[in-house]
Amino acid sequence: MTATGQTIYHDRVRRAQAEMARQGVDALAIGVGSDLDYLTGYPSHNSERLTLLIVPKEGEPRIVVPELEAPRLKQAGVPFAPVVWSETEDPANMAADLIWETGARSVASGDHLWASFLIKMQRHLPEVTWNIAGGIMRELRMCKDAPEIALLREASHRTDKAWEDFAQTKIAGLTERQAMERLGDLMRAHGIESMAFGICASGPNSASPHYSTADRVLQEGDAVVFDFGGFYKHYVSDITRTVHIGAPSDEYWKVYDVVLRANEAAFAATRPGVACQEIDRAARKIIADAGYGEYFIHRVGHGLGLDVHEEPYMVEGNTLPLRVGMVFSDEPGIYMPGKFGVRIEDSVVCTETGGEKLNDAPRDLLVMQ
Amino acid sequence: MTATGQTIYHDRVRRAQAEMARQGVDALAIGVGSDLDYLTGYPSHNSERLTLLIVPKEGEPRIVVPELEAPRLKQAGVPFAPVVWSETEDPANMAADLIWETGARSVASGDHLWASFLIKMQRHLPEVTWNIAGGIMRELRMCKDAPEIALLREASHRTDKAWEDFAQTKIAGLTERQAMERLGDLMRAHGIESMAFGICASGPNSASPHYSTADRVLQEGDAVVFDFGGFYKHYVSDITRTVHIGAPSDEYWKVYDVVLRANEAAFAATRPGVACQEIDRAARKIIADAGYGEYFIHRVGHGLGLDVHEEPYMVEGNTLPLRVGMVFSDEPGIYMPGKFGVRIEDSVVCTETGGEKLNDAPRDLLVMQ
Repeated sequence: MTATGQTIYHDRVRRAQAEMARQGVDALAIGVGSDLDYLTGYPSHNSERLTLLIVPKEGEPRIVVPELEAPRLKQAGVPFAPVVWSETEDPANMAADLIWETGARSVASGDHLWASFLIKMQRHLPEVTWNIAGGIMRELRMCKDAPEIALLREASHRTDKAWEDFAQTKIAGLTERQAMERLGDLMRAHGIESMAFGICASGPNSASPHYSTADRVLQEGDAVVFDFGGFYKHYVSDITRTVHIGAPSDEYWKVYDVVLRANEAAFAATRPGVACQEIDRAARKIIADAGYGEYFIHRVGHGLGLDVHEEPYMVEGNTLPLRVGMVFSDEPGIYMPGKFGVRIEDSVVCTETGGEKLNDAPRDLLVMQ
Repeated sequence: MTATGQTIYHDRVRRAQAEMARQGVDALAIGVGSDLDYLTGYPSHNSERLTLLIVPKEGEPRIVVPELEAPRLKQAGVPFAPVVWSETEDPANMAADLIWETGARSVASGDHLWASFLIKMQRHLPEVTWNIAGGIMRELRMCKDAPEIALLREASHRTDKAWEDFAQTKIAGLTERQAMERLGDLMRAHGIESMAFGICASGPNSASPHYSTADRVLQEGDAVVFDFGGFYKHYVSDITRTVHIGAPSDEYWKVYDVVLRANEAAFAATRPGVACQEIDRAARKIIADAGYGEYFIHRVGHGLGLDVHEEPYMVEGNTLPLRVGMVFSDEPGIYMPGKFGVRIEDSVVCTETGGEKLNDAPRDLLVMQ
């Protein structure tokens, strides 16, 4: 994944154990998802069949897996011992027994473990106190090392190239879904292994920040928000560009300019030691001063890595200081209900001297056909 | 989704409330996923931003959503009142307070709710007993009504057509990933809206039932398992065909024939009143009698609907009797480590008179180039 051999996963488990000791947690119980990928290199998928990594406070972790997926563990080169369950066994009770046998009485559950698994283990182990593992995992995952940043940069770079190809094409007449499919094809052509997500929100739909791409036909006069990303060797890209089909109105020009300046202000505020909420405030001030404060209805950014959304979050109230290696999105937006929306998003890494943009597709207002 | 207007969701909520009363549960707390889709028509996505449907034992449900996704609820036509939280609020505590205000003391959490949300609500409501909602939701969702079966049939039919086109092509020389991309393109060409999953496992990889499609090049002499499905109007298809590139060995012919007969035996055993485990046993007997019992390392099938895997499961130990409208996969397999695997899968609905196959792509051994 990000280093030679599998010693990287042993190192990460040791870092987790150190953080567990610091936070007074005896064991981690991590289900499928990016925490499992981070600690073991296993790109698992959600399923009613329990997969669970158990990290004791000392010694080797064990990983509970369904028999039919044991070969996948081997395929992924996971360096920890599997505990295999067959189709007629009860894996939640088996996993709970393994946790109990480590002596753990304070256990942290992975944030994304399914409630059905957690509740079964809680019933099986009534004397255990259950915590949330997020506070431990974020300490490990928030600051990316050089190989991780290289992969994030590569994911962003390939995504930029796909966007630059896409920007040359005619999009009026396509449905939102067709436009996103074309962009997805270009992402794959540039070596992105799979799409993580893709929003194409056109015309009045662009005023909905998390719009579900549907069948509206793109047409002259539309603002169109494209927010998309994909995976490259486990790490993800995330970029937003807003274009206009045909000549924009004066109001659109004005709003676009405000959002672009907000994006730049958040980037300019980036340096080690600055609280995450200050990144949000920097962008929000530009938008509020221009009179659009009520139309910027989300935080300015989120961490980025194995997940599209992860710690740290650039949001009012988050006083966590930025550290070197933190990677996050810078994505202010203004959403005018019934009319249009504009969002401009880059991925940014915090370096010793300030922010560095991981992607660099043009940000100037793009008029497409 | 499956009926005119949104009265369907009011009906489903009333059915949920009747089942809650029967099982002694005061409220449901359903996060994103297929249960939410089933009860509200909201095709939500997992996120660190909490979305939670709260169904009290009487009266209207409420749905907690992040402000920036409130327009998506409207877009989906969700007929229940949203409770909107803004970026700087704490939604888990807000949701817990709403649950408490309904008077609920025994609450069932949706199976797939994230542990981080559940643990926060558990801490906020120490007097509440938490149960798993799966036992309630399965009573609602297991038996599909006629509009649901029509959508499942349509999803399967379109998937069959994609497979039949694919079967005409030359696959030797493609990587597994390229082959799956081609199949995905054909799925979309036949109106499948998005892929749910896709496994292409070639040569020795075909002996791993849940293999992760990778970059091995398909070649003469390979058995190749294709297990794939996609969504059509929220409902999913799921089919597996195993092909051979070039002339198969005698052993492969024999194994293929055993698996095909096992697939037919499970189908033939399907009728109302038969325990789910009997469907598994019918297939397993054929394979065991042929001497391959130890190489059939998974249950014979799973329910299918809004999820690729849902209740009921066709597995030893499940004594639940089949009912009219249950839809499930029939997918025996034999996996010879280091050599090859064969799996043949159809989607089957239980009718008054027996099983009906929802998909019908040819099952005879297909030799491809």
